[in-house]
Amino acid sequence: MERSQDYFNLSVTDFLKKLSSESPTPGGGSAAAVAGAMGAALVSMVCNLSLGKEKYLEHENLIKTSLEKANLLLENLLQCARDDVNAYNEVMNAFKLPKDSTPDKNLKIENACKNAIIPPENTIKNCEEIIKLAKNLFGKSNKNASSDLNCAQVLAEAGIKSALENVKINLNFIGDENYIKQKNLWLENF
Amino acid sequence: MERSQDYFNLSVTDFLKKLSSESPTPGGGSAAAVAGAMGAALVSMVCNLSLGKEKYLEHENLIKTSLEKANLLLENLLQCARDDVNAYNEVMNAFKLPKDSTPDKNLKIENACKNAIIPPENTIKNCEEIIKLAKNLFGKSNKNASSDLNCAQVLAEAGIKSALENVKINLNFIGDENYIKQKNLWLENF
Repeated sequence: MERSQDYFNLSVTDFLKKLSSESPTPGGGSAAAVAGAMGAALVSMVCNLSLGKEKYLEHENLIKTSLEKANLLLENLLQCARDDVNAYNEVMNAFKLPKDSTPDKNLKIENACKNAIIPPENTIKNCEEIIKLAKNLFGKSNKNASSDLNCAQVLAEAGIKSALENVKINLNFIGDENYIKQKNLWLENF
Repeated sequence: MERSQDYFNLSVTDFLKKLSSESPTPGGGSAAAVAGAMGAALVSMVCNLSLGKEKYLEHENLIKTSLEKANLLLENLLQCARDDVNAYNEVMNAFKLPKDSTPDKNLKIENACKNAIIPPENTIKNCEEIIKLAKNLFGKSNKNASSDLNCAQVLAEAGIKSALENVKINLNFIGDENYIKQKNLWLENF
Protein backbone atom coordinates (compact mmCIF):
# COMPACT_ATOMS: atom_id res chain seq x y z
CA MET A 1 0.00 0.00 0.00
CA GLU A 2 1.23 3.48 -0.82
CA ARG A 3 2.16 5.55 2.19
CA SER A 4 -0.48 8.20 2.48
CA GLN A 5 1.71 10.58 4.46
CA ASP A 6 3.76 11.23 1.36
CA TYR A 7 0.88 13.01 -0.35
CA PHE A 8 1.03 15.89 2.10
CA ASN A 9 4.79 16.12 1.85
CA LEU A 10 4.32 16.63 -1.89
CA SER A 11 4.38 20.21 -3.15
CA VAL A 12 0.96 21.81 -3.55
CA THR A 13 1.40 21.53 -7.33
CA ASP A 14 2.29 17.82 -7.18
CA PHE A 15 -0.47 17.08 -4.67
CA LEU A 16 -2.98 18.57 -7.12
CA LYS A 17 -1.52 16.43 -9.92
CA LYS A 18 -1.84 13.33 -7.75
CA LEU A 19 -5.41 14.32 -6.85
CA SER A 20 -6.24 14.59 -10.57
CA SER A 21 -4.69 11.22 -11.47
CA GLU A 22 -6.57 7.97 -12.02
CA SER A 23 -5.55 6.79 -8.56
CA PRO A 24 -8.69 7.04 -6.38
CA THR A 25 -6.52 8.19 -3.45
CA PRO A 26 -6.11 10.95 -2.56
CA GLY A 27 -9.73 11.78 -3.46
CA GLY A 28 -12.63 13.94 -2.37
CA GLY A 29 -12.28 12.97 1.29
CA SER A 30 -8.73 14.27 1.48
CA ALA A 31 -9.62 17.39 -0.52
CA ALA A 32 -12.41 18.07 1.98
CA ALA A 33 -9.94 17.90 4.87
CA VAL A 34 -7.40 20.11 3.06
CA ALA A 35 -10.13 22.71 2.38
CA GLY A 36 -10.93 22.68 6.10
CA ALA A 37 -7.22 22.90 6.95
CA MET A 38 -6.95 26.03 4.77
CA GLY A 39 -9.88 27.45 6.75
CA ALA A 40 -8.09 26.70 10.03
CA ALA A 41 -4.89 28.26 8.66
CA LEU A 42 -6.73 31.46 7.74
CA VAL A 43 -8.20 31.72 11.25
CA SER A 44 -4.64 31.36 12.60
CA MET A 45 -3.41 34.03 10.18
CA VAL A 46 -6.10 36.48 11.27
CA CYS A 47 -5.15 35.84 14.94
CA ASN A 48 -1.46 36.34 14.13
CA LEU A 49 -2.31 39.62 12.35
CA SER A 50 -4.25 40.80 15.42
CA LEU A 51 -1.98 39.76 18.30
CA GLY A 52 -0.18 42.62 20.02
CA LYS A 53 -2.09 45.29 18.06
CA GLU A 54 -3.29 48.03 20.43
CA LYS A 55 -6.71 48.16 18.76
CA TYR A 56 -7.44 44.55 19.71
CA LEU A 57 -5.69 44.37 23.09
CA GLU A 58 -8.99 44.02 24.94
CA HIS A 59 -9.61 40.79 22.96
CA GLU A 60 -6.06 39.44 23.43
CA ASN A 61 -7.23 36.40 25.42
CA LEU A 62 -9.83 35.42 22.85
CA ILE A 63 -7.30 35.89 20.05
CA LYS A 64 -4.63 33.81 21.81
CA THR A 65 -6.93 30.91 22.62
CA SER A 66 -8.43 31.04 19.11
CA LEU A 67 -4.94 30.85 17.63
CA GLU A 68 -4.05 27.80 19.73
CA LYS A 69 -7.31 26.08 18.80
CA ALA A 70 -6.99 26.90 15.10
CA ASN A 71 -3.44 25.53 15.00
CA LEU A 72 -4.67 22.31 16.59
CA LEU A 73 -7.61 22.06 14.16
CA LEU A 74 -5.17 22.48 11.27
CA GLU A 75 -3.11 19.52 12.54
CA ASN A 76 -6.26 17.46 13.12
CA LEU A 77 -7.48 18.12 9.59
CA LEU A 78 -4.16 17.15 8.04
CA GLN A 79 -4.49 13.90 10.00
CA CYS A 80 -8.05 13.47 8.66
CA ALA A 81 -6.67 13.89 5.13
CA ARG A 82 -4.07 11.16 5.80
CA ASP A 83 -6.58 8.87 7.52
CA ASP A 84 -8.98 9.23 4.62
CA VAL A 85 -6.36 7.93 2.19
CA ASN A 86 -5.57 4.92 4.41
CA ALA A 87 -9.22 4.10 5.05
CA TYR A 88 -10.16 4.34 1.39
CA ASN A 89 -7.23 2.16 0.39
CA GLU A 90 -8.65 -0.49 2.73
CA VAL A 91 -12.06 -0.19 1.05
CA MET A 92 -10.42 -0.81 -2.33
CA ASN A 93 -8.47 -3.76 -0.93
CA ALA A 94 -11.72 -5.29 0.32
CA PHE A 95 -13.39 -4.86 -3.08
CA LYS A 96 -10.41 -6.54 -4.75
CA LEU A 97 -10.71 -9.73 -2.61
CA PRO A 98 -11.51 -12.81 -4.73
CA LYS A 99 -15.24 -13.59 -4.77
CA ASP A 100 -15.04 -17.35 -4.25
CA SER A 101 -12.12 -17.72 -1.89
CA THR A 102 -13.49 -15.18 0.55
CA PRO A 103 -16.97 -16.03 1.78
CA ASP A 104 -16.95 -13.02 4.09
CA LYS A 105 -15.97 -10.54 1.37
CA ASN A 106 -19.18 -8.53 1.87
CA LEU A 107 -18.56 -8.23 5.59
CA LYS A 108 -14.99 -7.07 4.92
CA ILE A 109 -16.28 -4.45 2.48
CA GLU A 110 -18.87 -3.34 5.03
CA ASN A 111 -16.31 -3.01 7.81
CA ALA A 112 -13.89 -1.14 5.57
CA CYS A 113 -16.70 1.25 4.59
CA LYS A 114 -17.60 1.82 8.25
CA ASN A 115 -13.96 2.67 8.94
CA ALA A 116 -13.89 4.96 5.91
CA ILE A 117 -16.74 6.99 7.40
CA ILE A 118 -14.64 7.94 10.44
CA PRO A 119 -12.18 10.35 8.74
CA PRO A 120 -14.90 12.45 7.01
CA GLU A 121 -16.88 12.51 10.28
CA ASN A 122 -13.80 13.89 12.01
CA THR A 123 -13.32 16.38 9.18
CA ILE A 124 -16.86 17.62 9.79
CA LYS A 125 -16.35 17.95 13.57
CA ASN A 126 -13.12 19.92 13.12
CA CYS A 127 -14.64 22.17 10.45
CA GLU A 128 -17.57 22.97 12.73
CA GLU A 129 -15.05 24.20 15.32
CA ILE A 130 -13.37 26.44 12.72
CA ILE A 131 -16.70 28.09 11.92
CA LYS A 132 -17.30 28.76 15.64
CA LEU A 133 -13.82 30.28 16.03
CA ALA A 134 -14.24 32.49 12.95
CA LYS A 135 -17.69 33.72 14.03
CA ASN A 136 -16.38 34.65 17.49
CA LEU A 137 -13.50 36.65 16.03
CA PHE A 138 -15.60 38.98 13.87
CA GLY A 139 -15.26 42.53 15.17
CA LYS A 140 -12.61 41.41 17.66
CA SER A 141 -9.69 40.90 15.28
CA ASN A 142 -7.78 42.77 12.57
CA LYS A 143 -10.48 44.26 10.38
CA ASN A 144 -8.12 44.44 7.40
CA ALA A 145 -8.22 40.64 7.42
CA SER A 146 -12.00 40.35 7.74
CA SER A 147 -12.23 38.90 4.22
CA ASP A 148 -9.84 36.13 5.34
CA LEU A 149 -12.18 35.34 8.21
CA ASN A 150 -15.05 35.06 5.73
CA CYS A 151 -12.90 32.82 3.51
CA ALA A 152 -12.09 30.63 6.52
CA GLN A 153 -15.80 30.08 7.09
CA VAL A 154 -16.52 29.38 3.42
CA LEU A 155 -13.68 26.83 3.27
CA ALA A 156 -14.74 25.10 6.49
CA GLU A 157 -18.31 24.89 5.15
CA ALA A 158 -16.95 23.37 1.93
CA GLY A 159 -14.97 20.90 4.07
CA ILE A 160 -18.20 19.86 5.80
CA LYS A 161 -20.23 19.53 2.58
CA SER A 162 -17.48 17.58 0.80
CA ALA A 163 -16.95 15.28 3.79
CA LEU A 164 -20.70 14.60 3.93
CA GLU A 165 -20.54 13.34 0.34
CA ASN A 166 -17.92 10.85 1.48
CA VAL A 167 -19.99 9.67 4.43
CA LYS A 168 -23.01 9.12 2.15
CA ILE A 169 -21.22 7.18 -0.59
CA ASN A 170 -19.78 4.73 1.95
CA LEU A 171 -23.23 4.14 3.47
CA ASN A 172 -24.27 2.64 0.10
CA PHE A 173 -22.11 -0.43 0.76
CA ILE A 174 -23.26 -1.09 4.32
CA GLY A 175 -26.11 -3.50 5.09
CA ASP A 176 -26.18 -3.09 8.90
CA GLU A 177 -29.60 -1.47 9.37
CA ASN A 178 -29.02 -0.15 12.88
CA TYR A 179 -25.81 1.51 11.79
CA ILE A 180 -27.49 3.06 8.74
CA LYS A 181 -30.39 4.32 10.87
CA GLN A 182 -28.02 5.95 13.35
CA LYS A 183 -25.97 7.61 10.59
CA ASN A 184 -29.09 8.84 8.78
CA LEU A 185 -30.26 10.45 12.01
CA TRP A 186 -26.90 12.19 12.33
CA LEU A 187 -27.02 13.29 8.69
CA GLU A 188 -30.32 15.05 9.35
CA ASN A 189 -28.35 17.69 11.29
CA PHE A 190 -26.91 19.03 8.04
CA MET B 1 9.54 40.97 -2.55
CA GLU B 2 9.19 37.30 -1.78
CA ARG B 3 8.78 35.11 -4.84
CA SER B 4 5.21 33.90 -4.76
CA GLN B 5 5.89 30.85 -6.93
CA ASP B 6 7.75 29.26 -4.05
CA TYR B 7 4.56 28.91 -2.00
CA PHE B 8 3.15 26.32 -4.36
CA ASN B 9 6.41 24.43 -4.50
CA LEU B 10 6.16 24.09 -0.71
CA SER B 11 4.73 20.84 0.62
CA VAL B 12 1.01 20.93 1.40
CA THR B 13 1.92 20.89 5.10
CA ASP B 14 4.35 23.81 4.77
CA PHE B 15 1.98 25.77 2.55
CA LEU B 16 -0.66 25.50 5.27
CA LYS B 17 1.88 26.69 7.86
CA LYS B 18 2.76 29.66 5.65
CA LEU B 19 -0.96 30.40 5.14
CA SER B 20 -1.44 30.44 8.93
CA SER B 21 1.54 32.74 9.59
CA GLU B 22 1.36 36.48 10.25
CA SER B 23 2.46 37.15 6.69
CA PRO B 24 -0.66 38.37 4.84
CA THR B 25 0.44 36.44 1.73
CA PRO B 26 -0.50 33.81 0.89
CA GLY B 27 -4.00 34.68 2.15
CA GLY B 28 -7.65 34.07 1.41
CA GLY B 29 -7.29 34.87 -2.29
CA SER B 30 -4.73 32.13 -2.80
CA ALA B 31 -6.69 29.69 -0.64
CA ALA B 32 -9.75 30.40 -2.84
CA ALA B 33 -7.77 29.52 -5.96
CA VAL B 34 -6.32 26.36 -4.37
CA ALA B 35 -9.83 25.24 -3.36
CA GLY B 36 -10.90 25.72 -6.98
CA ALA B 37 -7.80 23.88 -8.19
CA MET B 38 -8.74 20.91 -5.97
CA GLY B 39 -12.18 20.99 -7.61
CA ALA B 40 -10.59 20.94 -11.07
CA ALA B 41 -8.29 18.09 -9.99
CA LEU B 42 -11.27 16.02 -8.82
CA VAL B 43 -13.05 16.53 -12.16
CA SER B 44 -9.87 15.29 -13.86
CA MET B 45 -9.72 12.30 -11.51
CA VAL B 46 -13.33 11.33 -12.27
CA CYS B 47 -12.56 11.58 -16.02
CA ASN B 48 -9.43 9.47 -15.59
CA LEU B 49 -11.46 6.87 -13.65
CA SER B 50 -14.03 6.75 -16.48
CA LEU B 51 -11.84 6.72 -19.61
CA GLY B 52 -11.69 3.40 -21.41
CA LYS B 53 -14.37 1.82 -19.21
CA GLU B 54 -16.90 -0.03 -21.39
CA LYS B 55 -19.83 1.35 -19.40
CA TYR B 56 -18.97 4.93 -20.34
CA LEU B 57 -17.67 4.39 -23.88
CA GLU B 58 -20.62 6.23 -25.39
CA HIS B 59 -19.54 9.34 -23.43
CA GLU B 60 -15.84 8.97 -24.30
CA ASN B 61 -15.71 12.26 -26.24
CA LEU B 62 -17.32 14.23 -23.43
CA ILE B 63 -14.99 12.62 -20.89
CA LYS B 64 -11.87 13.32 -22.97
CA THR B 65 -12.71 16.97 -23.61
CA SER B 66 -13.75 17.44 -19.97
CA LEU B 67 -10.41 16.01 -18.86
CA GLU B 68 -8.48 18.39 -21.11
CA LYS B 69 -10.50 21.36 -19.90
CA ALA B 70 -10.21 20.39 -16.21
CA ASN B 71 -6.42 20.03 -16.52
CA LEU B 72 -6.26 23.50 -18.06
CA LEU B 73 -8.50 24.97 -15.34
CA LEU B 74 -6.23 23.43 -12.70
CA GLU B 75 -3.21 25.19 -14.24
CA ASN B 76 -5.15 28.46 -14.56
CA LEU B 77 -6.15 28.32 -10.90
CA LEU B 78 -2.61 27.66 -9.71
CA GLN B 79 -1.66 30.76 -11.71
CA CYS B 80 -4.49 32.71 -10.02
CA ALA B 81 -3.09 31.63 -6.65
CA ARG B 82 0.36 32.93 -7.63
CA ASP B 83 -1.02 36.13 -9.16
CA ASP B 84 -3.01 36.81 -6.02
CA VAL B 85 0.15 36.75 -3.90
CA ASN B 86 1.96 39.13 -6.26
CA ALA B 87 -0.97 41.52 -6.55
CA TYR B 88 -1.55 41.63 -2.80
CA ASN B 89 2.14 42.24 -2.15
CA GLU B 90 1.83 45.30 -4.41
CA VAL B 91 -1.17 46.53 -2.38
CA MET B 92 0.90 46.26 0.79
CA ASN B 93 3.82 48.05 -0.85
CA ALA B 94 1.49 50.91 -1.82
CA PHE B 95 0.15 51.18 1.75
CA LYS B 96 3.74 51.32 3.06
CA LEU B 97 4.67 54.34 0.90
CA PRO B 98 5.57 57.40 3.02
CA LYS B 99 2.62 59.78 3.38
CA ASP B 100 4.45 63.05 2.78
CA SER B 101 6.94 62.16 0.09
CA THR B 102 4.31 60.52 -2.09
CA PRO B 103 1.50 62.87 -2.97
CA ASP B 104 -0.08 60.24 -5.21
CA LYS B 105 -0.04 57.52 -2.56
CA ASN B 106 -3.84 57.18 -2.69
CA LEU B 107 -3.79 56.73 -6.46
CA LYS B 108 -1.09 54.08 -6.12
CA ILE B 109 -3.15 52.24 -3.50
CA GLU B 110 -6.21 52.49 -5.74
CA ASN B 111 -4.36 51.11 -8.76
CA ALA B 112 -2.82 48.29 -6.73
CA CYS B 113 -6.29 47.38 -5.40
CA LYS B 114 -7.72 47.39 -8.94
CA ASN B 115 -4.94 45.01 -9.98
CA ALA B 116 -5.58 42.87 -6.91
CA ILE B 117 -9.17 42.36 -8.07
CA ILE B 118 -8.04 40.65 -11.28
CA PRO B 119 -6.76 37.34 -9.76
CA PRO B 120 -9.95 36.64 -7.73
CA GLU B 121 -12.07 37.56 -10.78
CA ASN B 122 -10.13 34.99 -12.77
CA THR B 123 -10.52 32.47 -9.95
CA ILE B 124 -14.29 32.98 -10.18
CA LYS B 125 -14.38 32.54 -13.98
CA ASN B 126 -12.34 29.33 -13.81
CA CYS B 127 -14.42 27.93 -10.94
CA GLU B 128 -17.61 28.59 -12.89
CA GLU B 129 -16.20 26.43 -15.69
CA ILE B 130 -15.43 23.61 -13.23
CA ILE B 131 -19.05 23.60 -12.05
CA LYS B 132 -20.27 23.35 -15.67
CA LEU B 133 -17.89 20.45 -16.36
CA ALA B 134 -18.93 18.58 -13.21
CA LYS B 135 -22.66 19.07 -13.91
CA ASN B 136 -22.27 17.73 -17.46
CA LEU B 137 -20.45 14.62 -16.25
CA PHE B 138 -23.15 13.42 -13.84
CA GLY B 139 -24.57 10.11 -15.08
CA LYS B 140 -21.97 10.00 -17.84
CA SER B 141 -18.89 9.10 -15.79
CA ASN B 142 -17.75 6.49 -13.25
CA LYS B 143 -20.61 6.32 -10.75
CA ASN B 144 -18.28 5.03 -8.02
CA ALA B 145 -16.69 8.47 -8.13
CA SER B 146 -19.94 10.45 -8.08
CA SER B 147 -19.13 11.76 -4.59
CA ASP B 148 -15.88 13.18 -6.01
CA LEU B 149 -17.90 15.01 -8.66
CA ASN B 150 -20.06 16.49 -5.90
CA CYS B 151 -16.94 17.47 -3.95
CA ALA B 152 -15.54 19.13 -7.09
CA GLN B 153 -18.64 21.30 -7.31
CA VAL B 154 -18.60 22.17 -3.60
CA LEU B 155 -14.93 23.16 -3.79
CA ALA B 156 -15.42 25.26 -6.92
CA GLU B 157 -18.36 27.01 -5.24
CA ALA B 158 -16.14 27.69 -2.21
CA GLY B 159 -13.50 29.06 -4.58
CA ILE B 160 -16.07 31.48 -6.02
CA LYS B 161 -17.40 32.60 -2.62
CA SER B 162 -13.91 33.08 -1.17
CA ALA B 163 -12.71 34.96 -4.24
CA LEU B 164 -15.76 37.25 -4.03
CA GLU B 165 -14.67 38.22 -0.51
CA ASN B 166 -11.36 39.31 -1.97
CA VAL B 167 -12.98 41.35 -4.70
CA LYS B 168 -15.18 43.13 -2.15
CA ILE B 169 -12.44 44.01 0.33
CA ASN B 170 -10.32 45.61 -2.39
CA LEU B 171 -13.26 47.72 -3.57
CA ASN B 172 -13.18 49.44 -0.16
CA PHE B 173 -9.96 51.22 -1.10
CA ILE B 174 -11.04 52.42 -4.54
CA GLY B 175 -12.55 55.88 -5.08
CA ASP B 176 -13.18 55.63 -8.84
CA GLU B 177 -16.98 55.74 -8.92
CA ASN B 178 -17.43 54.39 -12.45
CA TYR B 179 -15.22 51.43 -11.64
CA ILE B 180 -17.09 50.72 -8.42
CA LYS B 181 -20.45 50.95 -10.21
CA GLN B 182 -19.33 48.50 -12.87
CA LYS B 183 -17.99 46.01 -10.29
CA ASN B 184 -21.11 46.26 -8.15
CA LEU B 185 -23.23 45.44 -11.21
CA TRP B 186 -21.05 42.38 -11.81
CA LEU B 187 -21.27 41.36 -8.14
CA GLU B 188 -25.06 41.29 -8.43
CA ASN B 189 -24.69 38.09 -10.51
CA PHE B 190 -23.67 36.16 -7.40
